[in-house]
Amino acid sequence: MRAAVMYGAGDVRVEDRPDPKIIDPTDAVVRTLAACVCGSDLWPYASMPATDTGRPMGHEFLGIVEETGPEVTGLKTGDVVVTPFTYSDNTCDYCVKGLHISCRNGGRYGFDGGQGEAVRVPHADGTLVKLPVAADSALLPSLLALSDVMTTGHHGAVTAGVGRGDAVLVVGDGAVGLCAVIAVKRLGAERIVLAGRHEARTNLGREFGATDVVAERGEEGIARIRELTGGVDKVIEAVGTRQALDTALGAVLDGGTISRLGVPQYEQGPIGPAEFMRNITLTGGASPARAYIEQLLPDVLDGAITPGRVFDRTFSLDQAPDAYRAMADRQVLKALIRP
Amino acid sequence: MRAAVMYGAGDVRVEDRPDPKIIDPTDAVVRTLAACVCGSDLWPYASMPATDTGRPMGHEFLGIVEETGPEVTGLKTGDVVVTPFTYSDNTCDYCVKGLHISCRNGGRYGFDGGQGEAVRVPHADGTLVKLPVAADSALLPSLLALSDVMTTGHHGAVTAGVGRGDAVLVVGDGAVGLCAVIAVKRLGAERIVLAGRHEARTNLGREFGATDVVAERGEEGIARIRELTGGVDKVIEAVGTRQALDTALGAVLDGGTISRLGVPQYEQGPIGPAEFMRNITLTGGASPARAYIEQLLPDVLDGAITPGRVFDRTFSLDQAPDAYRAMADRQVLKALIRP
Repeated sequence: MRAAVMYGAGDVRVEDRPDPKIIDPTDAVVRTLAACVCGSDLWPYASMPATDTGRPMGHEFLGIVEETGPEVTGLKTGDVVVTPFTYSDNTCDYCVKGLHISCRNGGRYGFDGGQGEAVRVPHADGTLVKLPVAADSALLPSLLALSDVMTTGHHGAVTAGVGRGDAVLVVGDGAVGLCAVIAVKRLGAERIVLAGRHEARTNLGREFGATDVVAERGEEGIARIRELTGGVDKVIEAVGTRQALDTALGAVLDGGTISRLGVPQYEQGPIGPAEFMRNITLTGGASPARAYIEQLLPDVLDGAITPGRVFDRTFSLDQAPDAYRAMADRQVLKALIRP
Repeated sequence: MRAAVMYGAGDVRVEDRPDPKIIDPTDAVVRTLAACVCGSDLWPYASMPATDTGRPMGHEFLGIVEETGPEVTGLKTGDVVVTPFTYSDNTCDYCVKGLHISCRNGGRYGFDGGQGEAVRVPHADGTLVKLPVAADSALLPSLLALSDVMTTGHHGAVTAGVGRGDAVLVVGDGAVGLCAVIAVKRLGAERIVLAGRHEARTNLGREFGATDVVAERGEEGIARIRELTGGVDKVIEAVGTRQALDTALGAVLDGGTISRLGVPQYEQGPIGPAEFMRNITLTGGASPARAYIEQLLPDVLDGAITPGRVFDRTFSLDQAPDAYRAMADRQVLKALIRP
């Protein structure tokens, strides 16, 4: 099969790889219909040391079950399925709590990646969610968004405790930030301030439900948010930089909650006496996407939410190197790859 | 009147001070019946630079209303009252949310302190809570504990989201940690692990409801807690050191919550990718004691909880210097002062 493999920073190649096979009895092999490039794929694209062996890429995909191992009972050949961005058994104590990201038997894709023609999926029964659509459904992009960005945005809204009538700040106009706007709107937020400076993206954010856009950064951005809202009780930080966290801390009211969705690009952060006296809660983290797919699925199927709109360009598998380049250059918000 | 005044590290003196008077129309003057030395009083006792002017001490007290300003409507001379450790108007947006510690018109005591014969209380209607007891009630110590340690312990339990059947770790066997044990027990926790190494205190913790005591510290302590519990979902960190936070992080399960009650003795802390991937929530902070006094009062009045047991020695006002010394030397858990 053909698949995208990264050999170092800026070096993604599409090449022939062995076809994935059932190894464990709980595996399935999924023929990929659509996949995406994740924001986190851009980190190795920016910094990975050159290697001879290469690393198959892609952990967000949707496809058709081609083969199942002897212990897979809930899926059969021909099922259309979406995967969360990590696999999980859906039975361990963490999965039972809805924290599939910490599954005792789970992990990240990587042996053969989703940006290819087929993928071996471990713990297929626990991982894959069957979709009641045909392989040519117009809904595929929005269903694919459930593999990561939409379920991640929803995780921010849930952990921030967003509810009806809330004022919420979303920091970051990437695909996760925009999906967070969808999520907080869906949970009833009334005032949704989106902090971002890329106009095409913030315009999409407005269509998703943002009531205000703040393009200023740093102290100026905080002042503007405070001027607009008087401060907010709930913030979703969908970037991961210290500046984004500082914006969140500056805009949040005492007693408020900051939910982080962007993987922190820092090891230590401000949780000293000042934040303590203000009773700031810091929550969020890596999304247990699997826990949310079935929750959000009905809203995607009936068109109530359309997170697939974050995919602003489609690439063939052979164009995967272009997809990376376009996302890294911020010419494309989120790339859809159709093998 | 006589009052305790700190002139520098290790230097507390009891001396004559002007009698407090009504200044603002919302003030009351309270004649002190009982006061305490707070753990936070020990920081200046350890490190305050010497001064000529001195700083009146004490922000936890209980007493009798002596005089009220013309705008005070809810209190009258002779009422027995307890104060939270900060004053607050009980009407601003923060107070309405129950976050009295951030009151827009609130603040900390300090002009004339609670460790004295009388105190001017600003925003008396918003601050003081009337107690349905006589001035010689045997319940005074437990009622006095509502001014800080008991309401602070409760804040930890509330912000950690403790509920029926939970397993909870309380780090720290000081008065706040012990009151946190009372609070989590009161909210239905089943397994309560108390981390502390001062045997008299951990024994009191057991009487308050701790099911297990872990005396080991650092990695050894974490291993012991994990061995006992398999990890806990909720931790109350009632110390404030980095070591205590590290113990909390080591013992908490992925997706768990750490509520901090000890003022952090650090500015930056570990909130990087590792904690992010684990979905750790960091919450808690300075307690809005005023919000909780009426909630906890019935349980104190009917003897369901007895937080006053943390006071293990009573001092006269003239003995205030001894009270500080005894607490600083850890000979006394919490000192009660009776002017």
